Amino acid sequence: MEKLLADNDNGDALKVNVKDIIIGGNKKVIISGPCAIESYDSLFNIAKELKKMNVDILRGGAFKPRTSPYSFQGLQEEGLKIIRAVGDEVNIPVITEIMDTRDIEKAMQYTDMIQIGSRNMYNYSLLKEVGRTKMPVLLKRGMSATIKEWIYAAEYIMAEGNLNVVLCERGIRTFETYTRNTLDLNAVTVVKQKYRLPIIVDPSHGTGFRELVPKMSLAAICAGADGLEIESHINPEKAISDARQTISMDTLEKIIHDVKKFNMYFS
Amino acid sequence: MEKLLADNDNGDALKVNVKDIIIGGNKKVIISGPCAIESYDSLFNIAKELKKMNVDILRGGAFKPRTSPYSFQGLQEEGLKIIRAVGDEVNIPVITEIMDTRDIEKAMQYTDMIQIGSRNMYNYSLLKEVGRTKMPVLLKRGMSATIKEWIYAAEYIMAEGNLNVVLCERGIRTFETYTRNTLDLNAVTVVKQKYRLPIIVDPSHGTGFRELVPKMSLAAICAGADGLEIESHINPEKAISDARQTISMDTLEKIIHDVKKFNMYFS
Amino acid sequence: MEKLLADNDNGDALKVNVKDIIIGGNKKVIISGPCAIESYDSLFNIAKELKKMNVDILRGGAFKPRTSPYSFQGLQEEGLKIIRAVGDEVNIPVITEIMDTRDIEKAMQYTDMIQIGSRNMYNYSLLKEVGRTKMPVLLKRGMSATIKEWIYAAEYIMAEGNLNVVLCERGIRTFETYTRNTLDLNAVTVVKQKYRLPIIVDPSHGTGFRELVPKMSLAAICAGADGLEIESHINPEKAISDARQTISMDTLEKIIHDVKKFNMYFS
Amino acid sequence: MEKLLADNDNGDALKVNVKDIIIGGNKKVIISGPCAIESYDSLFNIAKELKKMNVDILRGGAFKPRTSPYSFQGLQEEGLKIIRAVGDEVNIPVITEIMDTRDIEKAMQYTDMIQIGSRNMYNYSLLKEVGRTKMPVLLKRGMSATIKEWIYAAEYIMAEGNLNVVLCERGIRTFETYTRNTLDLNAVTVVKQKYRLPIIVDPSHGTGFRELVPKMSLAAICAGADGLEIESHINPEKAISDARQTISMDTLEKIIHDVKKFNMYFS
Repeated sequence: MEKLLADNDNGDALKVNVKDIIIGGNKKVIISGPCAIESYDSLFNIAKELKKMNVDILRGGAFKPRTSPYSFQGLQEEGLKIIRAVGDEVNIPVITEIMDTRDIEKAMQYTDMIQIGSRNMYNYSLLKEVGRTKMPVLLKRGMSATIKEWIYAAEYIMAEGNLNVVLCERGIRTFETYTRNTLDLNAVTVVKQKYRLPIIVDPSHGTGFRELVPKMSLAAICAGADGLEIESHINPEKAISDARQTISMDTLEKIIHDVKKFNMYFS
Repeated sequence: MEKLLADNDNGDALKVNVKDIIIGGNKKVIISGPCAIESYDSLFNIAKELKKMNVDILRGGAFKPRTSPYSFQGLQEEGLKIIRAVGDEVNIPVITEIMDTRDIEKAMQYTDMIQIGSRNMYNYSLLKEVGRTKMPVLLKRGMSATIKEWIYAAEYIMAEGNLNVVLCERGIRTFETYTRNTLDLNAVTVVKQKYRLPIIVDPSHGTGFRELVPKMSLAAICAGADGLEIESHINPEKAISDARQTISMDTLEKIIHDVKKFNMYFS
Repeated sequence: MEKLLADNDNGDALKVNVKDIIIGGNKKVIISGPCAIESYDSLFNIAKELKKMNVDILRGGAFKPRTSPYSFQGLQEEGLKIIRAVGDEVNIPVITEIMDTRDIEKAMQYTDMIQIGSRNMYNYSLLKEVGRTKMPVLLKRGMSATIKEWIYAAEYIMAEGNLNVVLCERGIRTFETYTRNTLDLNAVTVVKQKYRLPIIVDPSHGTGFRELVPKMSLAAICAGADGLEIESHINPEKAISDARQTISMDTLEKIIHDVKKFNMYFS
Repeated sequence: MEKLLADNDNGDALKVNVKDIIIGGNKKVIISGPCAIESYDSLFNIAKELKKMNVDILRGGAFKPRTSPYSFQGLQEEGLKIIRAVGDEVNIPVITEIMDTRDIEKAMQYTDMIQIGSRNMYNYSLLKEVGRTKMPVLLKRGMSATIKEWIYAAEYIMAEGNLNVVLCERGIRTFETYTRNTLDLNAVTVVKQKYRLPIIVDPSHGTGFRELVPKMSLAAICAGADGLEIESHINPEKAISDARQTISMDTLEKIIHDVKKFNMYFS
């Protein structure tokens, strides 16, 4: 079988449609929302705010991969139903993470884009299974994956026939302990220059601290990212998970404004 | 829910039985065999040799998690049948890797111990699912997992009721490029001192080169490991995968001899 | 003795003057030139071009810290004389690296700013010795130094009385092999938010490939950097060292233009 | 100039004499003593104990490279005088770290072996300068140095004519935070197989915790190390620096006993 993603393959850059949103086109795409879906009301209130500022896609985790089995694991299928209902009510496409091959069929009913998290980048069974659907997939980089391994992970999906893959750089693990991860923006430029896939950046996990998110968001766009996935909440300090890296609605609005301004002058 | 594995919990050290083999007892356990199951005959010939030198458990991969989707992915279910048949014929317990929650039931028919590979250490769905069986599980350390995350991964299995967990250190990813991974023997001593779980070492992946395997095998035992998992083959240079780190039967025999001698004088 | 650089110490941001150039002020500072000083003519020709495009400081290495003792070690004192002469002729301040405490006095005659390279960030004797001068110092981050260790290295200089310290992020060592180093722009934002020191970025070493330099230059400015140090050459492919990461005059001009434009709209 | 240390160069293994102690021969060499020289009496009392158990070389730091300039920096020249006097009184060779090219002449009066610390492995001026003496040198691996860079650092010394170089593995920097460093025993086996230089291991810095030192000491010997450098103190909890990783005299005695026993059965 022939490779779809060979270095400098001269194929056209791929674009991925999530309903009427295009990832990989001229407009930088903003995906935002809480780390975990907490309740219908909470997600609905966040989604309304996001919609007002033209966020493109609503994120929210139903299945949460937590380091400890005793931490909150997400609302599971109940969470999937909530994000679908909120997305429909507010009229915004939704994305949520799937971790188990057995949940993919269910996910197809409830979400518009499937997220494969950092911990599952090497979960080849899962990659192949989403490759057999036509669902848009957001493929996060493994926390210590090389760029090459990450591209091959995308290739696992594409080799099954699903070309709707968007990469997401979310920071890698290094010796530095000041930040949660080291955001690798070199990787964004490498991917844009060498491969045909759209790529976005998650500055929330990529830094671990909300005060670093605005600067790193803009830096990511400079590096050539096609968009951003940012954890936001109406009440960031009260977020059930990842509170320390979750930004407020006001901060998000400022970031969106800056990204738009940047795109106006630099593309 | 209460933690099973708290630091210094003063609980008794756990032992794991794989048929009549005890992992975590006085005897150091040797697991060996080829990286991938290649054919019945090839595996049978290897197994006979291993049995002669009292190797405790036969390893062989049916589902191979390969970086590229275009590399050999293993014989899949056919491989499971082969390893079961060879194990029965030669009278040696067998271990093989499972990567998908949907394959666990099948695996229970065909293997005596389930291996969770490095790439799936964070695959919490898989961990929970093997936690619901009583199967012995060999849990490899993620390639950039901290000791704490690894213990929590074991906890995911144990929290579901399955205490038959053995850890396996297999090297971590660092900047060093001379070796495939950096074998972290500190981690072995930490686990033995702080936690109740048995732990073995895989010097094949931990080094990536067959000429380093004998020394690192003995060093691992010195560090306190309860055993070793080593890739071996009758014709190492011809092994379908991981040839560079696979040792011959003669080298394995020498390692087993040294481990036994070490144990005699130092325990 | 009291710390000068305590976290969030509310002291004023420091500015460093190199002749009439101010680092840490509103204008982003550009430092450029070849990796190694090759000859008077070569450096003079480069410097003239740099001066035309308003580069602020000319860089060029006389003492080259090379991994192998058999690689070109720089023109040594002869190189110092060349860069001083060229700087005077073209009327541009100059910076060069010093590696030995015994060379500092000499350096004070020949250079306007001393560079402490990545390999010498932990060379505390050297730090103390430049701390006893009033020379402006560009302190590169050690290739695996934490932010905290780097700040302490600056503190070694400042504790001796020399507050003219500028930090330079140049990439850290990780498992990624695609790029030479992983440029850590998180660190730039952290430093700007928590400490009083100016900080610039070296995208040449931070990536290792000239085609990544323009994007990473702009991303660094976005992240809050006070300037850039970029390896450039009239004939990049022919540069004696670091050719692969050295950019042409045209590329540099484009970067300077973009930085200026960015600063106009975003500060 | 020709390389002295080329891969598999078939030259004879080098041995290094420190007075009448041979490093790289059949006997495993033990270097021990406190991290920092604290006073004549304290060092003398430790040295007497070490001598009783046949420790080969006494270590003690006079110039201490500390992360913070406000931490204890060692007794400096006063420390050199103390270790010389104690060594003479107790009749044991001594080793101490030198960090500045200007101190080498002084060091030649006061010490029998010069230690180049991890932070100075890339300090090529220092390496060249000790290369111009005939002093035995213990060259620690840089905290994120590749094996290749480390060998080249040795080559810097040897290229100047001093072949009395002993390498010391002391742990590398990784993402793991449980231990201070990750002791890389793979590197020991690689060096023994590929190069002609003697190599010892420092399990104190390589782990950061005294309870890990005995196991890692023996594992290092298994991996092929020619000896050990271990921080010890009569009153480890009271040691001025590195207390957490410093072992007692009793623990050291047990390690020496085990190393001897290992060597008896395995060499």
